Amino acid sequence: MASYSCRSREELCLEREKLLARYEELKKENLKLDMSRGKPSKLQLDLVSDMLEVLTDPAQCQIEGNDCRNYGDLAGLKCAREYWADVLGCKPEQTFVGGNASLSLMHDLIARAYTHGLNDSPKPWCQEEKRKFLCPSPGYDRHFRITELYGFEMIVIPMTPDGPDMNMVEELVQDPAVKGIWCVPKYSNPQGYSYSEETVDRFANLKPAAPDFVIMWDNAYCVHEFDGVFEPFRDIISLCAEAGRPNMVYEFASTSKITFPGAGISVMASSEENIAYQLKLISVQTISYDKINQLRHVKYLKNREHTIELMKRHATIMAPKFEMVLWILRHQLTNKGIAHWHHPKGGYFVCVAAMPGTAKRTLELCKQAGVTLTEAGATYPYGIDPQDSMIRIAPSLPPVEELEKAMHVLCTSLRLAAIEKILE
Amino acid sequence: MASYSCRSREELCLEREKLLARYEELKKENLKLDMSRGKPSKLQLDLVSDMLEVLTDPAQCQIEGNDCRNYGDLAGLKCAREYWADVLGCKPEQTFVGGNASLSLMHDLIARAYTHGLNDSPKPWCQEEKRKFLCPSPGYDRHFRITELYGFEMIVIPMTPDGPDMNMVEELVQDPAVKGIWCVPKYSNPQGYSYSEETVDRFANLKPAAPDFVIMWDNAYCVHEFDGVFEPFRDIISLCAEAGRPNMVYEFASTSKITFPGAGISVMASSEENIAYQLKLISVQTISYDKINQLRHVKYLKNREHTIELMKRHATIMAPKFEMVLWILRHQLTNKGIAHWHHPKGGYFVCVAAMPGTAKRTLELCKQAGVTLTEAGATYPYGIDPQDSMIRIAPSLPPVEELEKAMHVLCTSLRLAAIEKILE
Repeated sequence: MASYSCRSREELCLEREKLLARYEELKKENLKLDMSRGKPSKLQLDLVSDMLEVLTDPAQCQIEGNDCRNYGDLAGLKCAREYWADVLGCKPEQTFVGGNASLSLMHDLIARAYTHGLNDSPKPWCQEEKRKFLCPSPGYDRHFRITELYGFEMIVIPMTPDGPDMNMVEELVQDPAVKGIWCVPKYSNPQGYSYSEETVDRFANLKPAAPDFVIMWDNAYCVHEFDGVFEPFRDIISLCAEAGRPNMVYEFASTSKITFPGAGISVMASSEENIAYQLKLISVQTISYDKINQLRHVKYLKNREHTIELMKRHATIMAPKFEMVLWILRHQLTNKGIAHWHHPKGGYFVCVAAMPGTAKRTLELCKQAGVTLTEAGATYPYGIDPQDSMIRIAPSLPPVEELEKAMHVLCTSLRLAAIEKILE
Repeated sequence: MASYSCRSREELCLEREKLLARYEELKKENLKLDMSRGKPSKLQLDLVSDMLEVLTDPAQCQIEGNDCRNYGDLAGLKCAREYWADVLGCKPEQTFVGGNASLSLMHDLIARAYTHGLNDSPKPWCQEEKRKFLCPSPGYDRHFRITELYGFEMIVIPMTPDGPDMNMVEELVQDPAVKGIWCVPKYSNPQGYSYSEETVDRFANLKPAAPDFVIMWDNAYCVHEFDGVFEPFRDIISLCAEAGRPNMVYEFASTSKITFPGAGISVMASSEENIAYQLKLISVQTISYDKINQLRHVKYLKNREHTIELMKRHATIMAPKFEMVLWILRHQLTNKGIAHWHHPKGGYFVCVAAMPGTAKRTLELCKQAGVTLTEAGATYPYGIDPQDSMIRIAPSLPPVEELEKAMHVLCTSLRLAAIEKILE
């Protein structure tokens, strides 16, 4: 069949009638399906729940000459720092182990930069007349909410299959008001792109005007393949050091999608100098994050290799869901000229670029048929998608059979919205 | 024997010689004892370590219609909010459940007030030309470090056995630059005073000039009796509401000294309006604190009554240590006119007010003999005790026999320092 835009008005009206009939049928099913957030499913949580049993003997808490039940060890247990260093390919001394949310580590870093400045800041960011932040988009809404809360002017950087548009990044960092950039280097949220080798090199070799420019390297999906073998990634911390700006990057990761989203551990990694500076400030905020949970995780996850083995078992649950989503997208939307998408090999999302001006309407139709997706615009700064085009699908939570129904609702809605737009 | 200050020079020199001989003997023991921080002892940690076994079945994680292993429930599990409401005597809707450190909840509240203001703030505190904070002293060093980090001028409020000097507090809050006060209302750190009923009433009825004046009510030792029965305390949140300023107080508590200091849960309680406002800001920082640990705690601690029963078992470990400390103080220092102290019935500290000008010297002598105490001055803002008098003793960590030795070192050092001072 021809692309929608090449069809005659009559053909489109006929198509619309067929789709509307189908939409009404789907509506009658009284669905209540949620594809809005990247939540692991119950099956995935059950997969790792034997972790609840690995630390029940108090004698295990005596480690490294200390009692992890007691106060102390601000930067985290040594074994937990070693675990993260192994996963990320950096050094234990470059890590700080946090609580269940790497989001908090990111928020708190920006908050401290705002109130006190980073290691190389001439002054606290709140005293800068103008603060700007680069936001590769579509991106992660919770990143953007942090820089919005602290009053940054957020600048959209277009995403390409190789990562953010680096020509634009290199140009914009010449502005000393540009203080940083949000990055999800592997299986980017929401498109599932992994930064190319060249992109990573160009990041490490950035020469920003601001001495305290910060790359927020959120390696949220560092071991999160659901299709194929583990894809190694390079250590951004040593790359920046080699390029002469060791303090330019902070890397983040967590076990939220490895063990429990509600009860995992997280990490912030950077140059030793940066970590030492941060520790001084963090020592006012806490005495340490939960060390028993750190030890529980180390006992359960052991090391990178063992973690990757566990991720393969997650993959057996995730893969059929992504296959279903991608199969229906292909089946329903190919060759209609109204949407395109990337086929990711890991991460938690599929992102559909719908015909400009139809994303909001599509999600409205979905909602009326009982299917909730991430709000239109959420993947852009200030919640505004200038093209009104991006639709983020989070297939992880619902079971496959529900997902199938939800995807039929989505595709039917998307096609209806496209026809409405063309006939406008 | 007569007070040191009434003795002749000869008598004092003789006394000094005896004490020096004793000090040298103690030094020969090559002690390495630590009474510096309010850390629970291994026995106390063992006492509660059956908590590691109460949540091992993943089926238990399905509660309140949700899965506590997954994302969600920003303000905490309903059952955890109910637990804290029961302990503090407030309403579940007035609580926010945090991670293992109430210190973080306090820090983050002040940080958010600084960057964004509180509920009733005309503007963020960082934009105020002058910021002042009232610091009842001696007090908790970690409180003071927070307000120091955010650039407050800290004003010392003398402590009395009934709590802070309320005449001074009532006068100083007339200054609109005074934004708040630190309080430990029950078994105050370090003196162990509990605020009198009148003091609590005067707090609730404060009429500060600053509309966003905040009482930081750190109820750290709310159920922490080691001597005698549980002393009930009044709900400061409803008292402030009754007095017409429901948003004036934030209360804090944690299980750090009930279960594990390194892996407990914490709470911030305030008016529903305040909690709602804070949730909006906290939603940018995290998706929730560790909910599995919240559930683990609720399963283990159950409610206030059951928690108080557990605290009686902690008391059997704590009481002999405090008795030893107080017995040696009495035995070694009574009637010499060189020190006085309060006999607390709960909390974690004993505070000795030594002869002015002798605290630093006393701790120096202790250190040379292998005994570490909280740094002199630490209980005052900026680490400066204007009288150089307060010595904080934390008896909880060492076993009784070590404590006995450490106390002999302390008392001998204190007496030597006093004689040196008098003979100056």
